[in-house]
Amino acid sequence: MNLSQRLTAEFLGTFWLTFGGCGSAVLSAAYPQLGIGFAGVALAFGLTVLTGVYAFGNISGGHFNPAVTVGLWAGKRFSASDVLPYIVIQVAGAIAASVALYVIAKGSPEFKLGNFAANGYGELSAGHYSFVSGMFMEILLTFFFLIIILGATSPRAPAGFAGLAIGLALTLIHLISIPVTNTSVNPARSTGPALIVGGAYLKQLWFFWVMPIAGGWLAGIVGRTLYKAPK
Amino acid sequence: MNLSQRLTAEFLGTFWLTFGGCGSAVLSAAYPQLGIGFAGVALAFGLTVLTGVYAFGNISGGHFNPAVTVGLWAGKRFSASDVLPYIVIQVAGAIAASVALYVIAKGSPEFKLGNFAANGYGELSAGHYSFVSGMFMEILLTFFFLIIILGATSPRAPAGFAGLAIGLALTLIHLISIPVTNTSVNPARSTGPALIVGGAYLKQLWFFWVMPIAGGWLAGIVGRTLYKAPK
Amino acid sequence: MNLSQRLTAEFLGTFWLTFGGCGSAVLSAAYPQLGIGFAGVALAFGLTVLTGVYAFGNISGGHFNPAVTVGLWAGKRFSASDVLPYIVIQVAGAIAASVALYVIAKGSPEFKLGNFAANGYGELSAGHYSFVSGMFMEILLTFFFLIIILGATSPRAPAGFAGLAIGLALTLIHLISIPVTNTSVNPARSTGPALIVGGAYLKQLWFFWVMPIAGGWLAGIVGRTLYKAPK
Amino acid sequence: MNLSQRLTAEFLGTFWLTFGGCGSAVLSAAYPQLGIGFAGVALAFGLTVLTGVYAFGNISGGHFNPAVTVGLWAGKRFSASDVLPYIVIQVAGAIAASVALYVIAKGSPEFKLGNFAANGYGELSAGHYSFVSGMFMEILLTFFFLIIILGATSPRAPAGFAGLAIGLALTLIHLISIPVTNTSVNPARSTGPALIVGGAYLKQLWFFWVMPIAGGWLAGIVGRTLYKAPK
Repeated sequence: MNLSQRLTAEFLGTFWLTFGGCGSAVLSAAYPQLGIGFAGVALAFGLTVLTGVYAFGNISGGHFNPAVTVGLWAGKRFSASDVLPYIVIQVAGAIAASVALYVIAKGSPEFKLGNFAANGYGELSAGHYSFVSGMFMEILLTFFFLIIILGATSPRAPAGFAGLAIGLALTLIHLISIPVTNTSVNPARSTGPALIVGGAYLKQLWFFWVMPIAGGWLAGIVGRTLYKAPK
Repeated sequence: MNLSQRLTAEFLGTFWLTFGGCGSAVLSAAYPQLGIGFAGVALAFGLTVLTGVYAFGNISGGHFNPAVTVGLWAGKRFSASDVLPYIVIQVAGAIAASVALYVIAKGSPEFKLGNFAANGYGELSAGHYSFVSGMFMEILLTFFFLIIILGATSPRAPAGFAGLAIGLALTLIHLISIPVTNTSVNPARSTGPALIVGGAYLKQLWFFWVMPIAGGWLAGIVGRTLYKAPK
Repeated sequence: MNLSQRLTAEFLGTFWLTFGGCGSAVLSAAYPQLGIGFAGVALAFGLTVLTGVYAFGNISGGHFNPAVTVGLWAGKRFSASDVLPYIVIQVAGAIAASVALYVIAKGSPEFKLGNFAANGYGELSAGHYSFVSGMFMEILLTFFFLIIILGATSPRAPAGFAGLAIGLALTLIHLISIPVTNTSVNPARSTGPALIVGGAYLKQLWFFWVMPIAGGWLAGIVGRTLYKAPK
Repeated sequence: MNLSQRLTAEFLGTFWLTFGGCGSAVLSAAYPQLGIGFAGVALAFGLTVLTGVYAFGNISGGHFNPAVTVGLWAGKRFSASDVLPYIVIQVAGAIAASVALYVIAKGSPEFKLGNFAANGYGELSAGHYSFVSGMFMEILLTFFFLIIILGATSPRAPAGFAGLAIGLALTLIHLISIPVTNTSVNPARSTGPALIVGGAYLKQLWFFWVMPIAGGWLAGIVGRTLYKAPK
């Protein structure tokens, strides 16, 4: 596919991830009695990627996440020259999604901005987890996310199941860590809501670029050896 | 398969979608303590389509939804001459399902009609979301629903996984938007309950024909270019 | 595979269905604060069949349910001579599972027998749904269960996905109908708990043989035409 | 793949199982209002294995569990000489995961150690289930877990679906039995938290080695006959 189709796919996929994941958190998680809770939000984030991979994976590879793009590059699965355009368009998609979500959400008289699904550590963490806890969590989870991506898309893995495994990995990651950092593992997804809420959340945004990308990059390096075919 | 088999499949599939999705909402969502909540309803709607695609997809294509039929036609995946019969039989299936559900539901002494899972905006929205919020939400979600359908059924997508991706896309859509419009993205599903509850819900029914079909049609147009194979 | 292997597979599969589905209901559903609720029970029942089909389907076909065996026979997918041995061993598996569950459950000082996951209508229905509501529900749901089974295992359906579709169909069925009849669609699963609790539940047991088998049989007849290959 | 790659895969996979499963329990299960409950923990445990099988299965076979390794050896699917190295590295992965989880969890000012997701029977069981109940439960569930593994990976099962069936089997197992023993079926997963909390939990640790391995071994013996191809 040509670059224009691939960037359109990454834009739409990252829009869908951010709109669907953060949208379920903002609109549905805490609805009285019937709300979907953290488990529903975890499922929603995972399903944005699961559906996105089957919809767009055959066009762009289905990254939707700068940490994934960097990790696949580090693992020698993705061309260096495409890293920057992918990341730029992913961030654009996530920002567009956050604006769309904000426009829709404020159409309710009961709307309160709150954290608008932004990520945070310390005082901005739901469970007040420290900088160090957040750092370990984001690095570790993004590391495993990329290891799963590298493994499930390796030539020896069963064809077709990668979207299922990768999407449900993101659900699992959210089941573990929403109380810690509100779960990023994706700098684009973190950027959209942080720009809407601003303030302290925006000051912590660098953290959700550095940690996921560090974890993803590390997985790429490990994956080079781990998935090397035997001679 | 012949047209009679195909229309039977669309009737049964749309019956199943409406009976299963609205049935879980009416009968099980708000059961004290143990009820399935919005997350359970979201799962139920998705599973009606997931199971319906594996059961009926090989007969009729598994639309169960006028917005899907229009979107596939706009995306040049479906014959114009079959659009109208498909939509008519889908609506018939949804109405039959709503009647069946009503007959069963009123067999409980504790039954109250409520909104009977009908869709609505403004005062009829669970979170009182405005006309504009509802409009954006229904167009946007149906757009992505059709993009996922077009992508997951494109020749380059892994065979067999379409039912999984499409069904779980509908679950995701409900996880996001039940508080906004009670989630339509499907004019047939909206028509059945609106005819049962009538009144203000019936007056808003046009909205849940126009918005999903607009979103589906738009996806069909975008999909023509997005999924065009490289020369 | 020989008949002894096939009957062993049906025994184990029906044991697993009854132990896992009823076990999650009896042990985990109503645990204070953290209990899995009806949605968790629905998931559990579905996963017993999903896992059972991948474990035993290649041995016995993976029925685990007299209504499935009758429906497949009515749909000309299963030999008449094997119907009775299958049903007998399924009932034996379900009874063994209920006894095992009872032995385990009463090892808690907080154990109360309650309905022990038995099925019921009228006064024995969680929502006090009438005989007629229960009848329509059980016939209709078993009808669709068998239609999905016939469709997902037809030669034109994608290979391998049947276990997924059939298992998740059972989850969907439970999401809809636990408040109505506690969800049977399976006479063997109904027989085990009814024998443990006895009394009024045992008097209603005939209902959960007749209705599911009627629905399954009807689906077999419809399926003969619906899934007939075009000439 | 060489032994070093295989043991790395087992270390990472067992780390992921223990960190993800116990992490969701410790960090997210009981969060006020929005917590994921037992159902979310059950989903998380299952998804660690589902994702681990697609990520690592093509390297090491994806055991992540001494009872699985013993069961596959008993079923003549795994070489005796690799049993010990696999078990040692699995335990190392589980201990490393528990330490990592502890470091992250205590970064919250609200952290209380509690049972730290350790397994237990009698007074250490959430529902105070007896030694005998716990014994039957762990043996029976590990038996079925291994039967499902043996069946879903047998040559006659549909290729590629094993990870899905096996992962979701672990979810089902947790839906049934968290109130009974906090669900082990995996001695490595039990060892990590028991070493952190110590005391009475550590005294019961032998139980969660003996019972799961007994169940897994029994399944291996049964599986030899059950999955024997017809002559």
